[in-house]
Amino acid sequence: MSEYDDATRLEAGEDPARRHGTFHEEWMIGNAVNGGLVMTTALQALGEHLAADPTETTEHVNPVVLSAYFMTASQPGPFTVTTEIMRCGRRLSTGQMTIHQTGDDGQPVERMRAIGSFGDLADLDVQRQASPPEMPPPEECVSAEQAPPDFLANAKFLERLDLRLDPRTAGWAVGKPSMRGVMRGWLRLRDGREPDTTMLMMALDALPPVAFDLGLFGWTPTLEFTGHVRRRPAPGWLQVSLGSETLGGGMMEEDALIWDSTGNLVAQSRQLCGVRLPR
Amino acid sequence: MSEYDDATRLEAGEDPARRHGTFHEEWMIGNAVNGGLVMTTALQALGEHLAADPTETTEHVNPVVLSAYFMTASQPGPFTVTTEIMRCGRRLSTGQMTIHQTGDDGQPVERMRAIGSFGDLADLDVQRQASPPEMPPPEECVSAEQAPPDFLANAKFLERLDLRLDPRTAGWAVGKPSMRGVMRGWLRLRDGREPDTTMLMMALDALPPVAFDLGLFGWTPTLEFTGHVRRRPAPGWLQVSLGSETLGGGMMEEDALIWDSTGNLVAQSRQLCGVRLPR
Repeated sequence: MSEYDDATRLEAGEDPARRHGTFHEEWMIGNAVNGGLVMTTALQALGEHLAADPTETTEHVNPVVLSAYFMTASQPGPFTVTTEIMRCGRRLSTGQMTIHQTGDDGQPVERMRAIGSFGDLADLDVQRQASPPEMPPPEECVSAEQAPPDFLANAKFLERLDLRLDPRTAGWAVGKPSMRGVMRGWLRLRDGREPDTTMLMMALDALPPVAFDLGLFGWTPTLEFTGHVRRRPAPGWLQVSLGSETLGGGMMEEDALIWDSTGNLVAQSRQLCGVRLPR
Repeated sequence: MSEYDDATRLEAGEDPARRHGTFHEEWMIGNAVNGGLVMTTALQALGEHLAADPTETTEHVNPVVLSAYFMTASQPGPFTVTTEIMRCGRRLSTGQMTIHQTGDDGQPVERMRAIGSFGDLADLDVQRQASPPEMPPPEECVSAEQAPPDFLANAKFLERLDLRLDPRTAGWAVGKPSMRGVMRGWLRLRDGREPDTTMLMMALDALPPVAFDLGLFGWTPTLEFTGHVRRRPAPGWLQVSLGSETLGGGMMEEDALIWDSTGNLVAQSRQLCGVRLPR
């Protein structure tokens, strides 16, 4: 079993709306479990709930849109996902996902709450899509393995990925951010597992924060994240492009786009994150 | 009292999490109450709930982010907003909003569910923001009053607004869409009420669908909408710009940006909407 599949594996019990899993230390970034993995796990739970519901349209197997709000940082250890099916429509089936962990005082602490919709992204007829940016091939890009060891020590999550940054947007790693608010790279799972529509939601939040390219190296917690999946990705490398145009009041926006190995746009997102400005 | 304030007015009862209001026919667009008004009403309720909560930081008076999922079309008549305060943090206070109406069978029908966060947008220090597009002044733009009467008959909502479209993006109104997926215009409330941070969330969803500029004139229901408010708007005209780069599988994305009369970016959004393609 791939380590990604293992990390998002859930146990179902008698309650059809409740599933249990364990966050592993290997998926941490800084002092929290990677938010992308948390979202992917929540989607996994809603997908399983929809698939098990006898009244549900079984064709709605792909996450199409997800809006997630992060309340507290997820920690390694057991968690519970609670799901609620809100509406099964012709085009989309929509539900709510909540992830809890047990706090130090033994009480449940809410980590993330999200609403999202599943649909059928097979055999899509696509009329318009953004084209991928020009980028050198993966072998001419900067591997995350080349990052300073003290950086990698706080980003075990990056070891789960094979990430190659476009050298033109990797200057921040050697103290020379471009100050344009751009980051681009090639991405795939280190364990060789091919991307699917659920994994794309993690890939949208997998690159280093675009804030780094603005010279802002502090912790940039995701406050809200909304991702749209446009198509089922082809096997192979994903091409990820981040940008940001807005920064103010201690918050910034980060936009992400992903193309698959055939050059089709497969996912896009916008997140609002906190940012600490240098004094 | 302005007709906008009247339309978003809520009655609170004994339950601090429940408020009641009435959707007016005057705010309809097609066969539904305008989704922007529905979202604004939900935010109004969460804002009142937060303000009434003794444990809440009273500085969090401005909506900062909202993600709304539309389940069924809101109809003129009474509705109930149920709110839940999820977390009061230092930077943001986050809660959930649900709007119900009574269906034909007397049972409650969920219209919209949303998660959103309030914060303090006063005295923001802004480092980066997109600049407004070049547009002719309002008096040289195309007023919605010039739209065909049969179009206006199905869009009473437009009569609540003073909307002036940039002539370069209004060709669709005379059967000549630019096919670029762009729409721009000046916007203010017809009753003269000045914009505030809550009203901006409606303004993000107030222009005709950008689909019109792609020659797609069918109903484009909002499936999911996420809006970010960046600043408190100055009094006067709002400048709204819509774009879309993605269309496929019967769905499209619509991105909106709003600048206030001083040229500051005050809000932005992305929505996923359904679209019917010509056969």
